[in-house]
Amino acid sequence: MTANRRKILDVLNGETLSPPPIWLMRQAGRYLPEYREVRAKAGGFLDLCYTPDFAVEVTLQPIRRYGFDAAILFSDILVIPDALQRNVTFSEGRGPAMDPIKVDEISALDGDGLLEHLAPVFETVRRLRVELPGETTLLGFCGAPWTVATYMIAGHGTTDQAPARLFGYQHPEQFDYLLALLADLSAEYLIAQIDAGADAVQIFDSWAGVLGEEEFDRYCIRPVARMIAAVRARRPAAKIIAFAKGAGLLLGNYRQKTGADAIGLDWTVPMSFAVDLQKDGPIQGNLDPMRVVAAGKAMEDGIDRILEKLGNGPLIFNLGHGITPQADPANVAALVARVRGTAA
Amino acid sequence: MTANRRKILDVLNGETLSPPPIWLMRQAGRYLPEYREVRAKAGGFLDLCYTPDFAVEVTLQPIRRYGFDAAILFSDILVIPDALQRNVTFSEGRGPAMDPIKVDEISALDGDGLLEHLAPVFETVRRLRVELPGETTLLGFCGAPWTVATYMIAGHGTTDQAPARLFGYQHPEQFDYLLALLADLSAEYLIAQIDAGADAVQIFDSWAGVLGEEEFDRYCIRPVARMIAAVRARRPAAKIIAFAKGAGLLLGNYRQKTGADAIGLDWTVPMSFAVDLQKDGPIQGNLDPMRVVAAGKAMEDGIDRILEKLGNGPLIFNLGHGITPQADPANVAALVARVRGTAA
Repeated sequence: MTANRRKILDVLNGETLSPPPIWLMRQAGRYLPEYREVRAKAGGFLDLCYTPDFAVEVTLQPIRRYGFDAAILFSDILVIPDALQRNVTFSEGRGPAMDPIKVDEISALDGDGLLEHLAPVFETVRRLRVELPGETTLLGFCGAPWTVATYMIAGHGTTDQAPARLFGYQHPEQFDYLLALLADLSAEYLIAQIDAGADAVQIFDSWAGVLGEEEFDRYCIRPVARMIAAVRARRPAAKIIAFAKGAGLLLGNYRQKTGADAIGLDWTVPMSFAVDLQKDGPIQGNLDPMRVVAAGKAMEDGIDRILEKLGNGPLIFNLGHGITPQADPANVAALVARVRGTAA
Repeated sequence: MTANRRKILDVLNGETLSPPPIWLMRQAGRYLPEYREVRAKAGGFLDLCYTPDFAVEVTLQPIRRYGFDAAILFSDILVIPDALQRNVTFSEGRGPAMDPIKVDEISALDGDGLLEHLAPVFETVRRLRVELPGETTLLGFCGAPWTVATYMIAGHGTTDQAPARLFGYQHPEQFDYLLALLADLSAEYLIAQIDAGADAVQIFDSWAGVLGEEEFDRYCIRPVARMIAAVRARRPAAKIIAFAKGAGLLLGNYRQKTGADAIGLDWTVPMSFAVDLQKDGPIQGNLDPMRVVAAGKAMEDGIDRILEKLGNGPLIFNLGHGITPQADPANVAALVARVRGTAA
């Protein structure tokens, strides 16, 4: 045990720490005034992601404020379609948009130049590893193929990703090809993040919850397993967290089938099931982000229940989804203090 | 067994029928040209719901076309907030909207005049029972308190009902009061539908899938159980289907805890779990509506799997959510023929 011990890596290796280490999805974000300041200077959202000066700064902001046990690279899951020249744009209040892909465009998708396009991201990772405290785990990430594909097909977010579900039924072979391509390119992307200094990576399958079990197997498990195998083939020590939001019961064998070291849990996962999943290895989650907005007893009860039920096994404390802009930064300070047992 | 045997009631009484009876959620809807014609004549969407001539006609349309085993009253779950004078409006493409309710307005909500406001709905039910074929089950319905409350609080639909989740954390007592009030008013509404001639009723909890287990217990199970108990106290023979969309694992004891005769399953419920749930009683579902849009092998495989896995127990064949406007009416004909074994 040294001053540079990275607690989150210990948990990813199966250790139980008390108190558990903590970070929050979207911890660098709009709820922080210092983030909004940088965001205003950066121009477009992708400029923020692709300008290391800005991306490093906003990644560090929540570490300075709260001393989280992990920093997560500031970026977006849609940089992959952006690198594939799908004309990705982000507009305030309306979410991301891109050119919806047609079935006959899929075979022409070209990953050449991917790593060059994403070079500023790796520069950000390199600088972060230098600037972060030694004990802070640096996380890289990417979107899972299914979730990225849902945006590529619809051209924007939808409530239940019906366009991509329909596409998968209508064009199963082309869809499998797209998912495999995204898995392979995402593996390249993760390896480059690891080589730049990321200690571990997280794969976000934010739209895993809208699928039947056959499609979950085919669209979520198989491509994520392919991606993880591709990363491990070249970086055998890579530590990987996979987060299939909303997958519920289908999480039962998700860790085993994908090969992830740890699995993320959203706030709808019942505690008894979370306890079962933790018997197979580390878990991460799963406070409802709305409890952080509500604060007070709602937040405290939620935290206490997670610590009580899941604190006796390998746990990375986190929210069950990203923190929202309306969360008061003071509530986050109270959350961290309660998890660490340092509350007044 | 008579000519007027209503197969769906037999299944609700626990019988296994082969082939299973079938109806589709939103079977009276925009995918039918004859519906769009009436809709254009009706003016606003609520005018369609509240004008028996129109509502009877659109309810009958899919029965004429497909001979479904059930007709479901054409109406909307938001007629309850409309009757509570929350200024409900429907605009094409943007979905429903109403005045978002403030916490201090809740205690003033007044159900007086509810049944008078909804009198055209009961007139529609009475006329339907006369006009429908004797073997067609007539279903009434309402929204579950949680789902109706999510719209009342946000004032519109959202992707994860964060406003209502937050409201529940911030104002637990007022939220419990609102849910109980909606349960009681909805019970009155269902009883009046039953008295007007509805053979059975369905409770739609379309947003059950965004809750943690404690909130699911408190917002979904408890109010729906209250509603069902209130209906049964006065109409002991009432047959009730409860559909908690997206509830996943939390469906495990939903039937037992709510007292519903049958439970609806969405398309994300894994078959092995559906089989378990069917051991406790009738189930309804659960084809992905996108399979009906895709048609062909995707639709056929989905149908066949449901029939194979769930056809040997009490089953009402249905979709896992409402049919969508882009479904071709010819696909629905093919679906019905395949379920009934009358395909060419």
